[in-house]
Amino acid sequence: MTSKNHIATAFDRDLEAIQAMITRMGGLVEAAILDAVRALETRDVDLAGRVRRGDAEIDALEERINIEAARLIALRAPTAADLRTVLSAMKIAAALERCGDYAKNLAKRSDVLSCMPPVEGATGSIRRMGKAVQLQLKQVLDAYIHRDADLAEEVRQGDHEVDQMYNTLFREFLTHMMEDPSNISACMHLHFIAKNIERVGDHATAMAEQVIYLATGALPDGDRPKADNTASTGGVARR
Amino acid sequence: MTSKNHIATAFDRDLEAIQAMITRMGGLVEAAILDAVRALETRDVDLAGRVRRGDAEIDALEERINIEAARLIALRAPTAADLRTVLSAMKIAAALERCGDYAKNLAKRSDVLSCMPPVEGATGSIRRMGKAVQLQLKQVLDAYIHRDADLAEEVRQGDHEVDQMYNTLFREFLTHMMEDPSNISACMHLHFIAKNIERVGDHATAMAEQVIYLATGALPDGDRPKADNTASTGGVARR
Repeated sequence: MTSKNHIATAFDRDLEAIQAMITRMGGLVEAAILDAVRALETRDVDLAGRVRRGDAEIDALEERINIEAARLIALRAPTAADLRTVLSAMKIAAALERCGDYAKNLAKRSDVLSCMPPVEGATGSIRRMGKAVQLQLKQVLDAYIHRDADLAEEVRQGDHEVDQMYNTLFREFLTHMMEDPSNISACMHLHFIAKNIERVGDHATAMAEQVIYLATGALPDGDRPKADNTASTGGVARR
Repeated sequence: MTSKNHIATAFDRDLEAIQAMITRMGGLVEAAILDAVRALETRDVDLAGRVRRGDAEIDALEERINIEAARLIALRAPTAADLRTVLSAMKIAAALERCGDYAKNLAKRSDVLSCMPPVEGATGSIRRMGKAVQLQLKQVLDAYIHRDADLAEEVRQGDHEVDQMYNTLFREFLTHMMEDPSNISACMHLHFIAKNIERVGDHATAMAEQVIYLATGALPDGDRPKADNTASTGGVARR
């Protein structure tokens, strides 16, 4: 972009500032997810509290990105590809903000679960799922910063695994509940947690699609892998 | 806006076209929610199928709104309040698109539920909740078109009732599951449906906040009513 005139350079500088905020937001969201699943597994109420309170900073960053993006559009009147870049930044910030909300919700539920009898094996599986999703986020943010469509496509394909982990957990929770109804309350919360982590994976996929759009000018075609089939099957009943 | 010059008039005309698409999108989403809860209650698999297939039109409208909004920004380079208006239109379209996804997911689950024994009273309560949320959407779209901050504030306050309906259902489902474990699979799906309807209500609230921002230039202060307390209480266990 060095050959552009001084207005383009000002645009690039503003855009870089926005992308730096997105990187920072992404780091906070990744940490929030890891901390939330760790707090769940170790029943660490203090850590869960820090995750809950930390969401305010993530929200503030999104607000800031929106303001800066609007200012950039108003000031520099970018066209075509540049405008697309700014709008994508806003979409990615919105997706990260939602992921932060999911981490916060997860931390809230982990507080509740710390007062209930543990469900065998559940929190370990959820931690592994959280770790997988955090890696997806990390990869998609790398892909975003480097406009790397191949890496983004990898993230998109990887969502399948997260969905499979969720499907497995869904069936496990059903089994636990049927075997011992005293597990029901805890399993309902654990199930929501697993679903919310799966949704973070969906957001990583949506971000990957934005990156592919930015890098290639076209959205990937409609064969997006989708493997959460619990909405369309009876779960354990049809297994 | 009649006193503005011809560029402003072109902006207004483009904006009106976008708002007409939002109105159409809103109507489709409202109908999808009503049809989905009706299909659930009457076990109407054909109607559920129409809701599932109808989501493509909602998605296409959002895509179209995004393209038109980007075109409008690029072509007319709106500043300050006008830019805010266009960005709000994109945010509202994104919220409606998600609400459409929830209706589609609801229709998928209603197919699954039609093969399971009914859970007493559940689908009637869910239909009432769906109706309440559809009215919230209708009201917030009216508020948007007329830039009516008071009406938007009413929607925002009304979300409390939807949250209460959800809390009541959450406890009912827990009770049903504990009383008879053969209800567990069905209740898990019903619970997701109720949660998704509650999320549509949250989106209506977020849209209401956009309308207040558009009409007054400021987001409402932080005391947004939030009454889904199932994430922070043990549900029936703490009642």
